Order: sequence, then structure tokens, then C-alpha cells
Amino acid sequence: MRVSIPKGTRDFSPEEIYKRRYIFETIQKYFELYGFAPIETPAMENLDTLMGKYGEEGDQLLFKVLNNGDYLAKVPDELLNEKDSLQVTRHLARRGLRYDLTIPFARYAVMHRHEIALPFKRYQIQPVWRADRPQKGRYQEFYQCDADVIGSDSLQYEAEFILLYDQVFSELGIDTEIRINNRKLLTALSEKINSPHLLTQITTAIDKLDKIGIADVTNILEKEGLSHEQIKIIQDYLKLKTLEEMKPFFDSVPIGQEGIRELEIIENFLNGKPMNQSYSFDPTLARGLTYYTGAIIEVKPIGIKMGSIGGGGRYDQLTELFGGESMGGVGISFGAERIYDVMEELNLFGETGIHPPVLILTLDEKFQEYGFDILQQLRSNGIKADLYPAGDRMKKQMRYANKINAGYIMILGPEEWENKEIAIRNMKTGEQFNVALDQAVKMIKNL
Amino acid sequence: MRVSIPKGTRDFSPEEIYKRRYIFETIQKYFELYGFAPIETPAMENLDTLMGKYGEEGDQLLFKVLNNGDYLAKVPDELLNEKDSLQVTRHLARRGLRYDLTIPFARYAVMHRHEIALPFKRYQIQPVWRADRPQKGRYQEFYQCDADVIGSDSLQYEAEFILLYDQVFSELGIDTEIRINNRKLLTALSEKINSPHLLTQITTAIDKLDKIGIADVTNILEKEGLSHEQIKIIQDYLKLKTLEEMKPFFDSVPIGQEGIRELEIIENFLNGKPMNQSYSFDPTLARGLTYYTGAIIEVKPIGIKMGSIGGGGRYDQLTELFGGESMGGVGISFGAERIYDVMEELNLFGETGIHPPVLILTLDEKFQEYGFDILQQLRSNGIKADLYPAGDRMKKQMRYANKINAGYIMILGPEEWENKEIAIRNMKTGEQFNVALDQAVKMIKNL
Repeated sequence: MRVSIPKGTRDFSPEEIYKRRYIFETIQKYFELYGFAPIETPAMENLDTLMGKYGEEGDQLLFKVLNNGDYLAKVPDELLNEKDSLQVTRHLARRGLRYDLTIPFARYAVMHRHEIALPFKRYQIQPVWRADRPQKGRYQEFYQCDADVIGSDSLQYEAEFILLYDQVFSELGIDTEIRINNRKLLTALSEKINSPHLLTQITTAIDKLDKIGIADVTNILEKEGLSHEQIKIIQDYLKLKTLEEMKPFFDSVPIGQEGIRELEIIENFLNGKPMNQSYSFDPTLARGLTYYTGAIIEVKPIGIKMGSIGGGGRYDQLTELFGGESMGGVGISFGAERIYDVMEELNLFGETGIHPPVLILTLDEKFQEYGFDILQQLRSNGIKADLYPAGDRMKKQMRYANKINAGYIMILGPEEWENKEIAIRNMKTGEQFNVALDQAVKMIKNL
Repeated sequence: MRVSIPKGTRDFSPEEIYKRRYIFETIQKYFELYGFAPIETPAMENLDTLMGKYGEEGDQLLFKVLNNGDYLAKVPDELLNEKDSLQVTRHLARRGLRYDLTIPFARYAVMHRHEIALPFKRYQIQPVWRADRPQKGRYQEFYQCDADVIGSDSLQYEAEFILLYDQVFSELGIDTEIRINNRKLLTALSEKINSPHLLTQITTAIDKLDKIGIADVTNILEKEGLSHEQIKIIQDYLKLKTLEEMKPFFDSVPIGQEGIRELEIIENFLNGKPMNQSYSFDPTLARGLTYYTGAIIEVKPIGIKMGSIGGGGRYDQLTELFGGESMGGVGISFGAERIYDVMEELNLFGETGIHPPVLILTLDEKFQEYGFDILQQLRSNGIKADLYPAGDRMKKQMRYANKINAGYIMILGPEEWENKEIAIRNMKTGEQFNVALDQAVKMIKNL
């Protein structure tokens, strides 16, 4: 029998877990420092909660969980006979796996509205599942790390998210470019060219600027039916660099002025705060087809070809989806899987999180109990330690010491035993010396 | 629209997560101190991997994940027409949710056999899913915390698991009774009464002794067809208390002698090691219908009516299931969900893991930016802090401070502003005083 795991899923080895944990714990530390509180939601949600929230494609990419028991009994015969998978699903499955952390959060906020205090600052670090076609760097099970504030329109939160990004990526050692924009400027742009109904098309086109360049963006806009004059205005917009240049451009578009004012307030909050990452206003930032309505933020690594490793923005409504009162908010997420790839590629992990154990080797079964005594003394002193089971040749024991990355080994052989000593070897330097048995734990503690 | 989550699943609030995290991190800390390395496996496994491993009931309680796309296309018409849910399942679903951590671990060990070093010590703390009927204390999604060693028959591992239990429960503050037995003694018992084929029935009956008493156990054994002489011998066995008493009893049963010898070796390893929990040999311990073949261990809390909160034992085969070479091992698990309930009921959590934030309140929007300055200075000093968005009445801000369990609040009002001061209030004692603005961060740091 050939064993395997489902395509697009992964096993994680100890080494991978230590590295992943380092990323998650760094993000978590700053989420908590910034006053975000953790919540967790179940892996399975009711399909009612999930369906229709991610578009038609999302509905198809949701993993649905088969009802238990005689699940076919409740499926109408005619649907079964037609083998209409799409129609049959609702009768077979009432639960699905979490597809992101945003919808479960909105559901949580409405369900627990009487327990939470507004503004509600929550973070959530959990896996999500999507039936995407597996490919390099894309998985069917992966982690998301989200932080959101709902119930306040204060722009202090935009500012604190930027500073949070700055601190996390600085601590991880990744050089990034943090860019900000405001969806209101794009709305203003569509109004300035008298085509507010084309906001989505314009946003989508501008979102591609990074990848395809201005010529192809122009082509797309032409295909959408925009006139030369309109395209000229958009091209002018894309050349603007600062808020000051932006002001006369949107002189007569109130929502443009509003967007500029919001960005200025954020600038004021950030004024004088030390930042290590590159940070800039970028009027061409669009953040794809998302539900953002105000400020948008995106983080990309510098010096490596890779998409965004963080992003977020302000949205007007979220909890309305579940019948809650209308509640806006602002949120960001960290692309933990990509951050892992960046750190791996740039060799940024170092010895992260791996504490090499002390391994005790005995050369005769009769020393084993004594070895166990020392082992437990080491552990009582908080030293990660292990004892190789007696009976194997020294060579095999040494191979094991290397395999588990032992930092030090302690060897109990007949000669050492005779002299009431134990040998200690530094596995990195190869240096070896003997100490009195009753001094061994103290010695290791000091190393 | 009424929002809900699937029956038997749970949302976790920040407070619950801090408490759960305290339990998981304590267990994890000792797993690592004892040389166990973490692995993680995907939530979804191939149904091939899972089916047939947990008995017929287990197969039914597995959550199956519907294949994506036009999943009905591949189901034979005749099966669909018969509406035979059981037969149709294999055509609809090729993946299922993890049911425990043992089978995925065995699958992992075989798949990664070339990467791991034997003895392989791994731990795994992840959720599992079971379609059990939801009831108080039983969930469809819950965490398991397992540690296993495979590839060695050294009894040092049994000893270290007992010491590990001792340390973890001592640190958690739970008084427990750790009991040990050896399945070989039960095998010996069935041989001594010349009914080795009734081992399972005898084990099952003895397993119930705790709950139903000796009279009902006798009834069960009678119904199984055991003679009075046989039952008398079993009753004699159940009265034995020590290994010394056990020796003459199994004088002529080799496997009984072997079981006793193993327990003696474990005793020798434990000899002289400090333990805080109650620990004893209990010949009546049986550990239900599990695959254990050697030592078995169980942990129960003292002073509270609750089943076992930990258990494990030695098994002969595990990896054979997946075509790997035969590899025995020994493992334990912590019943984290029950441990949570015990700690909640006995009020053992205290302030565990909750670091009360400092909350800055401003009484006028014009102080908000300055409040944000102080906020970021606090955070730069590693102090968990937050700033209430400007504009609300003091009363509402205070309510928020209480709701988020702020440890200190800092108040920027017109009077304080005038004097270049800020008010600091200890939320526990109510004590309040003013400090110079430029001394505020330093002051909070020292509190």
C-alpha cells in the first residue's frame, strides 16, 4: 500500500514547525502588544454562513462536509436522478470548511455582540481550506493571520497597522515596502471622468499596472470603452506622487478631498514615529476586487520576486451580512506562507527556535539507570535533554546525536565510570573533556 | 437571519484562548524539555488512510469531505438509485477529517521513514473531528495532545512519561493519581484461568470495576460463561496490591513474570526521582479496548468527579498498518479539554496569561495625536497598550477600560494638558495621581 496525503496539503517536520512557529509567534506578539485579543472559530461553519460570500468561484472552492448517517435519504429523487451535483449539494452537506477568517469573524461579532466591547480589536491565526488547484506555493490548507478593528472610524487604527507592519517585518528581518492609498481617490477618479459606474473596471485595470505596465493598462481601459480624454485623465492621475499634487487634481471632487484628508490624518499620526521599513503613498495601489472603501495598505518584500506578504484596508460593512447592525472596520493580514518562503529563500531563519538538546550516551546497559538520573537532573534544571536507550554501538549513537542536532553529548563509558567521571563533548567544536559525575549537571548548566 | 455554528463546535473568546493556551503551552514546554519534537499533519487525510482503523463505529463517525466539482458524475447509477449512502460514500468523498493523532502519526512515520531517526520522539497538539452526538463536555471538534516514542523497547520511556505527567500536572496545579499496570498481567490472568481467548472480555469487565464495583463485574464474567473457579481466581487477582504479591500468583505464567519484571525496571528508573503527584501500581487498571500490549498508564484528578485526564501505554505495532516495517512504541496523551474543565471548576487559572493593557483616554479630539505618541512609546517599551478613539464621553471610555480589563488608564484632559501632565489610575486600587507628560512612559514602565 502506497501511503500519501491529499494533494495540496502538507506534513510539517519539527524543523518546519519551529520556523513557522517563529513567524506566528512574532506576529502574535505584536498583535497583542497593539491590544488585539485572540479569538478562534471552528474549522467547520454552516454552509449557510459561507455560501454566497466569496462569489460563484468561491462557492465552488469551498470544501463541503458530507452529512453523517444516511445522508442520501433526504435528497429528492428527481435531483439524484438528474445527477445535478450543484443542486444536490445543499441536501448532502450542511457544513463546510472555513474559507477565510473574515466571514467567520463577522459571524462571530454578530453572534457574540453582547459580549464584545466596541471598538472590538481581534486577531485570529488559524488554517483555512480552499479547493484551489494545487501548485507551487499554493495549498489547499494554509494559515491566515488577520487583525481587525470594528466599530470605530478613527484613522488612528490605519496608523497603528502601518506601525505594526513596520515592527513585525523589522523583527523578522525582511526588508519591505509598505504602501498606502485610499479607495476614495479611485472613486473620485471615476467621478472625475464622469463614469462612476466603471469604478470596478478602472480599479481592476490599475491593480494590474505593477505587472503589465501602463501600455497594457491603457489597452484594457480602451476595451472597456473609455474615451481618449478619460484615459488621459487616468494617465495623469497615475503620474501623481504626493498628496500635495493630488489636491488640485481633485479640487472639485468632494470624495477625492475626503480621501486626501484621511491620508493626511494618518500621516499626522505617523509623524515622528520611528520606522525601519520603506513607507510611501502610492496612488496606483488598488488591492484588487475587494470590499475596501477607505484606506488600503500593501506590503511587498524588497530584493526578491514575490507578491504581497501583507495587506489590508478599511471597509464600510461587514457584520450586516449576518443581520447585525452596520459596523465598519479596518483590518490587515500577514501572508504567513509567503513570509516563510521569503525567509527561507533569504536564509533569515538562522537557529530560530531550535534549542539543541543535551544527549546522554551510555556504553553499557548497567550505566543506563545512572544516565537516567543525570537526565532527570538536567530536565529539572530546565535543560532540554535525552538519553539514548542502552545497547547500541557508539557509532550508531553518535549518528543519532547528529540527527537530532544535539548541542552537547555526555558519555558514560567503563573508564569514566571507574573514575566516577563523565565525558562531555561540544558537538559544534568537537572539544571534549571529563568532569566528576556529581559536577556534570552543574557543568552543563554553565555551558 | 439567525446565525449559528454547527452543533458540537465552539467559538473561543479571548479569555478562553488565554486559558487554553496556558494548558497547551505548559504541555508543550515539557514535551520539548523531554526531547519530543513537534510534527503537524493536515486536517484532511485520504479516506484510505482513515477508514477501517477505528472500527465500524469509527468509520461512521468520520467526517467525510465531498469531492469538488461534478462529484455525482463518478457515482454508478445503480448505487445512486438504491440510495445506499454507505456504498455511495467512497464515490463521493476521497478525503476525511483527522479523527485522532495516532493514525496520522503512523502514516507520517511510514511516509517520512527516511528522514526520521529512531527512536523517533514526536509530539502533536492539533484538533481532531468526530461526528459524535454532541453533549455536555463532548464536542465534534476538540484538541488532542499526544507524545509517542517509536522504534525502541526501552522501558526508560515509560518512566519518563510518568515523570512528565508528574511535572505537567504539578505545574498546572492539579492533584492527580497516576496509576500504572501492564497488559501482560491481564494476558497472564487469562492464561492462568486457561481462557486466553477471553482476554478481551476479561479486560473489558475489569475496566468497568471503578464504575460498577466487583459484584457487577462478577455478573458480567458469569454471563461471559466463566466458571466459579475462574471467577474466584480473577477476584483474587483484583485483591493483589504489590508486585511482590503478584510474583507467587503468576509463578508458573511466563508472560506474567515478564510483566512484573517490566514494572520492576520502570520502578528502578523512577527510584529516587522527586514526584509531587500520587503514583501507584494498580493491577485493576485496564485502559479499555485499546491496542496496548505492555505497560499502561492513566491519570485521574483527585477531589473532583471526572474521568481520566491522561493516559497511554506501550503498543507492539503501529506503522505496520501502512506497510512500514513493524515498529512498536509507547505514547501518552493529555485530555486537554477535560483538563480545562477541571481547572475551571477548581478555579486554578488565576490571572493566567492575561496581561492587562494600559489604556489611554483623551477628553478632547485635539489630544488624540499626543495620546498616540504616548501609545507608541509604551509599545516600543514592550508595554501592551491601547488608545481609545477620541470623541466619546468619559463614562463610556471608562466602561470600555473595564471591559478590556485595563490594568492602568492614562487620562489626557484639558486640565492635565494645561499643566503638561497626565493622570494615571490604577484600575485595581482606584489610586490616581498626575505625572509630567514626559515622565509618563517611564512611570508606567516602573509600575
